[in-house]
Amino acid sequence: MEEYDMQFTCAKEDLLTAIGTVNRAASKMQKTILECILFSCAEDVITLRATDIALSIKTEMNAQIEKTGDAAIPAKLLYEIIGRFPESDVTFRSVGENSVEISCLNSKVVLQQMNADEFPVFPELENKEQIKLPQCALRTMINQTLFAAAVNEDKPILTGLLFDIEKDSLTIVALDGYRMAVRKQPAISDISKKCVIPARTLREVSRIISETEENVKISISGNMALFEAGNTEIYTRLLEGEYINYRNLLPADCATSVKVETNMLKDSLERASILAREGNNNVVKFEISEKNLEITSNSEMGNIDEQIPVLTEGKDLKIAFNAKYVLDVLKNVEESEVLMQYNTGVSPCVVKQENSDAYEYLILPVQLREE
Amino acid sequence: MEEYDMQFTCAKEDLLTAIGTVNRAASKMQKTILECILFSCAEDVITLRATDIALSIKTEMNAQIEKTGDAAIPAKLLYEIIGRFPESDVTFRSVGENSVEISCLNSKVVLQQMNADEFPVFPELENKEQIKLPQCALRTMINQTLFAAAVNEDKPILTGLLFDIEKDSLTIVALDGYRMAVRKQPAISDISKKCVIPARTLREVSRIISETEENVKISISGNMALFEAGNTEIYTRLLEGEYINYRNLLPADCATSVKVETNMLKDSLERASILAREGNNNVVKFEISEKNLEITSNSEMGNIDEQIPVLTEGKDLKIAFNAKYVLDVLKNVEESEVLMQYNTGVSPCVVKQENSDAYEYLILPVQLREE
Repeated sequence: MEEYDMQFTCAKEDLLTAIGTVNRAASKMQKTILECILFSCAEDVITLRATDIALSIKTEMNAQIEKTGDAAIPAKLLYEIIGRFPESDVTFRSVGENSVEISCLNSKVVLQQMNADEFPVFPELENKEQIKLPQCALRTMINQTLFAAAVNEDKPILTGLLFDIEKDSLTIVALDGYRMAVRKQPAISDISKKCVIPARTLREVSRIISETEENVKISISGNMALFEAGNTEIYTRLLEGEYINYRNLLPADCATSVKVETNMLKDSLERASILAREGNNNVVKFEISEKNLEITSNSEMGNIDEQIPVLTEGKDLKIAFNAKYVLDVLKNVEESEVLMQYNTGVSPCVVKQENSDAYEYLILPVQLREE
Repeated sequence: MEEYDMQFTCAKEDLLTAIGTVNRAASKMQKTILECILFSCAEDVITLRATDIALSIKTEMNAQIEKTGDAAIPAKLLYEIIGRFPESDVTFRSVGENSVEISCLNSKVVLQQMNADEFPVFPELENKEQIKLPQCALRTMINQTLFAAAVNEDKPILTGLLFDIEKDSLTIVALDGYRMAVRKQPAISDISKKCVIPARTLREVSRIISETEENVKISISGNMALFEAGNTEIYTRLLEGEYINYRNLLPADCATSVKVETNMLKDSLERASILAREGNNNVVKFEISEKNLEITSNSEMGNIDEQIPVLTEGKDLKIAFNAKYVLDVLKNVEESEVLMQYNTGVSPCVVKQENSDAYEYLILPVQLREE
């Protein structure tokens, strides 16, 4: 009879969920231990780990465990194969030192495994000072700010999001030099601290945490942060460097305040940007008066004119924007009405909710040459 | 008061449907008349035309017509803008010689138009000998054969599909040197004729005709074919050259006949091809015995073994395929069971329905070196 080092059986769905949770922390570098998921099979639970050093994810799953042991299996291939299995029980068995046999009904796959001993030790955080908030709240905060983070690496710090943690609140900030997103939320915190978390990590956090009211715990220690949600832990390196003092960027005054229906403005901008895109840097012009916002754009193909009913307080104003930056904001707010606050045609505009500082988006205008 | 050359009002949905119908015949070459849709506004109906010479599409739509006339407007831009309009009435007005004004609620777009007189005259077919069949039937036939047509242009004739028209049937054939699809259907015909129609045309025909039992009429004349469905006409050039005598390719005998559940075979092949793809040309091996089909594949990453219950008549057999070619067939048949007919391990396999010649797929095996 063959000797198996590790053996367990579990439902395909549970296995796929667990692999899907850690999967994207695995490195894309083939034939290295970092492309693997480490399965650690204890008496009563299986732990899955994946890491590319910058980001590390660990989760647990239940299974009928026959024999304890470890196995390191390439993540991408495994995820693809398990995803194609029928909805039934899946059995894992180590076969000798180098391979693992995975079977499900009439399918049997033998995969090469790598040396589990080479798998990096996971980070551990000392002084677990924490902030807690509902998973659904953190997810919304991330989704409403992530799009404003810098994509290119000119200023690496801006590819991350600032977590500004205070005793009773969490504020997340993203900016890329053209626009800024500031999102504030009540939270229960032991600490007052600022740190910058890579956008990539937060994309995974948003994907993994669920739409529940259950809390996610965030701990910061040294140059690491840890997100804990249910039985999943996400470790990430922090970005080093000084983040811009975002509070100074938000204008104190407002000369023109415009209340507008979110979807109406979004639809008009979508149309205007079709023409604005055609060789005109996506520039759309706003002309604001007491009850009307006129949006125009043009290219050599033609021009468009949109009239939107609004409620304006303050001075009339002309200003121009890159349509994409305004659209990014409108696509990510949930409210049916937003407030747009302006000062001059060459100073930034703030988009926010009436009577709330839950979010504030800052958008720089485009400066047009005198016509 | 301004003078308008053409003016009409219609529902946005009707306009979008009509533009969407002709749209893809327009050329991608910008700033030429061929990138335009020609609107011809008569007393009681509007005709839309688009053509890149090889393919020409014409459709009609109803509108409230204020003033007759023509306008040629860039197709892609127009389709994108109308698609973004709210669900309401849209008004078109020619403004002078060079532009057209399109308005919908509070949006007003002015687009440059090109010289409608330069728009190519549409082909006309003499001797309209016809074959008729339900639109839904033609659509299924096209979708079940198109995937087997050649993609590269080494043998241009194989980038088209053979229409083999007989007095009481239509047979559509596609082949690319590795597999062949033959699909036969009863039809009412004046003619016996063979012609080869470009795959691109048939992709558009399949998109435009609907799931109805209403007939589509196909006319062949000279080097042109015409598809008529409802108020839409699709003109296409035929491909020139001699098509392979496909009937000679279909084997007369069968030494091994295997009845198998379509989805079970498809799922097993999907799994096997995950490993087969990894540096092994997607080769999967079949080992057929009386009640079992074993599928195996391997790569340096591992190997997979699938056991599928089947009903076999005739000799046991070993044969290998490119998994993609078998999967393409299984994804396009509707029946829950298929019959696979083999002769030897180095001769083509036929996939068909039991007791029916509605479709016959021929798949060449991969010849493995002796192991």
